[in-house]
Amino acid sequence: MTIELHGTSIIGLARGQGREPAGRAINPASGNTLDPTYLAATPDEVDRAIGLAAEAFAEYSALPGRERAAFLRRIADEIDAVVDDITERGSLETALPEARMQGETARTTGQLRLFADLIEEGSWVDARIERAQPDRQPLPKPDIRSMRRPLGPVAVFCASNFPLAFSVAGGDTASALAAGCPVIVKAHSSHPGLAEIVGRAVLRAAEATGMPEGVFSLLYGSGREVGMALVKDPAIQAVGFTGSRGGGLALMEAASGRPQPIPVYAEMSSVNPVVLLPGAVDSRGEAIAEGLFASLTLGAGQFCTNPGLVFLPDGHGEAFLGKLKELVEIAPSAVMLNDGICQAFKTTASDFADTPGVETIAHSFTKQVEHRAVPVVFSVNVRRFLEDADLHGEMFGPGMLIVRGSLEEIEATIPELEGQLTATIHGEDAELAANASLIEALERRAGRLIVNGFPTGVEVCHSMVHGGPFPATSDGRSTSVGTMAIERFCRSVSWQGFPQDLLPPELRDDNPLGISRLEDGKRV
Amino acid sequence: MTIELHGTSIIGLARGQGREPAGRAINPASGNTLDPTYLAATPDEVDRAIGLAAEAFAEYSALPGRERAAFLRRIADEIDAVVDDITERGSLETALPEARMQGETARTTGQLRLFADLIEEGSWVDARIERAQPDRQPLPKPDIRSMRRPLGPVAVFCASNFPLAFSVAGGDTASALAAGCPVIVKAHSSHPGLAEIVGRAVLRAAEATGMPEGVFSLLYGSGREVGMALVKDPAIQAVGFTGSRGGGLALMEAASGRPQPIPVYAEMSSVNPVVLLPGAVDSRGEAIAEGLFASLTLGAGQFCTNPGLVFLPDGHGEAFLGKLKELVEIAPSAVMLNDGICQAFKTTASDFADTPGVETIAHSFTKQVEHRAVPVVFSVNVRRFLEDADLHGEMFGPGMLIVRGSLEEIEATIPELEGQLTATIHGEDAELAANASLIEALERRAGRLIVNGFPTGVEVCHSMVHGGPFPATSDGRSTSVGTMAIERFCRSVSWQGFPQDLLPPELRDDNPLGISRLEDGKRV
Repeated sequence: MTIELHGTSIIGLARGQGREPAGRAINPASGNTLDPTYLAATPDEVDRAIGLAAEAFAEYSALPGRERAAFLRRIADEIDAVVDDITERGSLETALPEARMQGETARTTGQLRLFADLIEEGSWVDARIERAQPDRQPLPKPDIRSMRRPLGPVAVFCASNFPLAFSVAGGDTASALAAGCPVIVKAHSSHPGLAEIVGRAVLRAAEATGMPEGVFSLLYGSGREVGMALVKDPAIQAVGFTGSRGGGLALMEAASGRPQPIPVYAEMSSVNPVVLLPGAVDSRGEAIAEGLFASLTLGAGQFCTNPGLVFLPDGHGEAFLGKLKELVEIAPSAVMLNDGICQAFKTTASDFADTPGVETIAHSFTKQVEHRAVPVVFSVNVRRFLEDADLHGEMFGPGMLIVRGSLEEIEATIPELEGQLTATIHGEDAELAANASLIEALERRAGRLIVNGFPTGVEVCHSMVHGGPFPATSDGRSTSVGTMAIERFCRSVSWQGFPQDLLPPELRDDNPLGISRLEDGKRV
Repeated sequence: MTIELHGTSIIGLARGQGREPAGRAINPASGNTLDPTYLAATPDEVDRAIGLAAEAFAEYSALPGRERAAFLRRIADEIDAVVDDITERGSLETALPEARMQGETARTTGQLRLFADLIEEGSWVDARIERAQPDRQPLPKPDIRSMRRPLGPVAVFCASNFPLAFSVAGGDTASALAAGCPVIVKAHSSHPGLAEIVGRAVLRAAEATGMPEGVFSLLYGSGREVGMALVKDPAIQAVGFTGSRGGGLALMEAASGRPQPIPVYAEMSSVNPVVLLPGAVDSRGEAIAEGLFASLTLGAGQFCTNPGLVFLPDGHGEAFLGKLKELVEIAPSAVMLNDGICQAFKTTASDFADTPGVETIAHSFTKQVEHRAVPVVFSVNVRRFLEDADLHGEMFGPGMLIVRGSLEEIEATIPELEGQLTATIHGEDAELAANASLIEALERRAGRLIVNGFPTGVEVCHSMVHGGPFPATSDGRSTSVGTMAIERFCRSVSWQGFPQDLLPPELRDDNPLGISRLEDGKRV
């Protein structure tokens, strides 16, 4: 490592002192602890980070898009410059392979640069202009214009399963900073060193591009103390979170219980149903099994979009099931992100195995070992599935439940599912067309629909919806991946009767930024 | 009246039976009751309305925009056809003048037709297309497309102060129906007959245009029973409300306490601060007084955007205050919408008058009479104002508080205000430019900023934001007036790897609807 880790929070431009130890990282592969000991932010430090963010908001939110874009690009550059440190420390803290660390670093810097492009171009503000009609009858029409403006300081909670792309400088941070909101990040205890490496990269970028102090802080400490202090502080105006349903629900409760309730964007849990239509499973059952197995076991099954629930029509799928069993039975064990996640997976899988009516149809022959998990596939009848709400829950890890029934029963089951991030269907052309109502039912339960593909692999782009009805997320109207994520941290504001020179440049008649606008109802 | 009122709910295509009397309308000018007695929807009727709405959702949400547009236009036509009944019954129930009834009817039908235009044109869905790049390194890019889709059945609560434009077929209903959401309206007890006249117009329109049964229902009964039953039902996916802060907060609490929390769009209270800069008040104080007085007393002061708080710099405003006093002192009394509102206004105004440090500087000489209110203007020092949170609250009615202090003190007070629907500033060109930071401070507290104008008169258009930070509304990211209101009832959905014929027309390569789309990051 070329970087020496300090073990303290970043409060504005300074390092925190901390007081109580927040703990050390643990190498999930060995169970060994890693230096240094991280110190939790003190209540004073939390207050100072929030105060600085609140102060920075006016200046930061008034910066032109190109200046915020330069900041985001510089963050990406600073992260790229420490990719070796990230890979080394990250692999130790998460047990994810080096290639994944490098790939996720590229995704993270790619996200930052995508948001930089978006705000430099500028049309994302949804500028609307309607000019005055002083002679309109019965009343004159005033000049009125609107565009999106940032909400205020945002608290971001790091995810354990995306230690870069949904952590310190991940999607929530990138979209909030792009919108014009200062960000205070609560580090995840599973990868504190990685958080520090990335946090210091953000800090260098803020200094290099002259951002106001407080535009970014990084706090160590527990969710219950530091996290709740952030969510409950009146200056915080929105929350981004990726993690467990319990954690997300606790944040939602705290946020809605404030004197001023604020939005919480929590991505919580999803079993990502996959429906196999008879023709597809008959004609290419083995290929579907290979694809599903790869999707199930990617990153030890620790993706939000992991396919945990597969609907298979009665009388079909012999080759599919044969191939799936074959792959699962020879699958190696994999280290999970931390021991808590690993234990939770083993407990949930064991509960599924013990549930009456549930059959374990494939299980790796690999010996179960500490810190490591192996894939497992269960099967249940659709009627039994409908009776037992516990079978609808997420097994976070490489676990899959196959639900068998007639195609009619499967279609009738879709509306009974909880909200999902994704829903996938495999079918031949003719049978897809014949099952349009089933696809529509899936649409009502999910944020993203996939035909003849697999749910893992979330493209970062303009048309990605990585969201979905509750409880997949706390707010099914939003996405945490892709450029639409910026809208979460904004509200529209109207300017009525303003002289040209007092309007934001986005709304001036001469359109100095050359953005796409809605002018008197027409897209210009 | 050419219409005979039935006094029962509308449940899908049928009339409810009711059971318990929900009460009769009261003429607020006389205190006399009006026939017929309205019967509250029974729990079974509420369930049936919700069940029909849930059933209707699949069919209604799949209709092309032009078919939903035809339904909205037909509603407007059916309302226009009964404008005489509306005017006659509405004036009796609300004491609002006939011209207001006619004007508000025109606004209501105008809103419906504006949303019809919007969904017929179709670009509002924010269609985004990114085509596959099978050869991209390191991973192929899938074909992915997104657009807005409706949330599901919506519960709408009628407002007392906009018995047409924010009631049965008002802005919430129009925007939800436009989005593709069935609507169940809870009638307001102040204007049940008006609600029935409009509800039956909607019903005729639904039948004439072949809409699925359940796309619209209208329920009578109390907020506590019928209203809460709606908000707590799992099939309801969003709530629209305009009314008191207490009512809005109760709905927010119920909605966030559901197993599946849902969004509540509640427009609750706002004092709509007006800042007078010295130059403007010196050069045209009398004209500003006339404008503010007209805005304050419009509709007996019962507008959400009523200017209840005016900041006046020390040492300025002699002519302004003189004119304002003169106008207020000769102002006639006005009947308020109902006796509860009238009593609440008198109590709040009396509390203001009794608050230490608050001076009553203008009060109508008109004798106070039952059911009627007269305008009143108070004055307080800015330091005293900052000490007493009660002085920041809304006096719903023609009451105004003038806050005096130095310009520096006034600017420092803006961040201490609660969230507001509007904020207004009057200034000469040079002093407006010199007070950019004050305008920015106003921007952070309000949904709409007005220069040298008055806050009442909310233009229904594309760039209107009739929203604002909490507690002006429950969700400061939204607007309840104008075409952006449709976004409240939608979420975006992604389609990945879909064959052309399974995509919604909005997302097909040949763009059969000819809408504006974001294709591979470019506006087309």
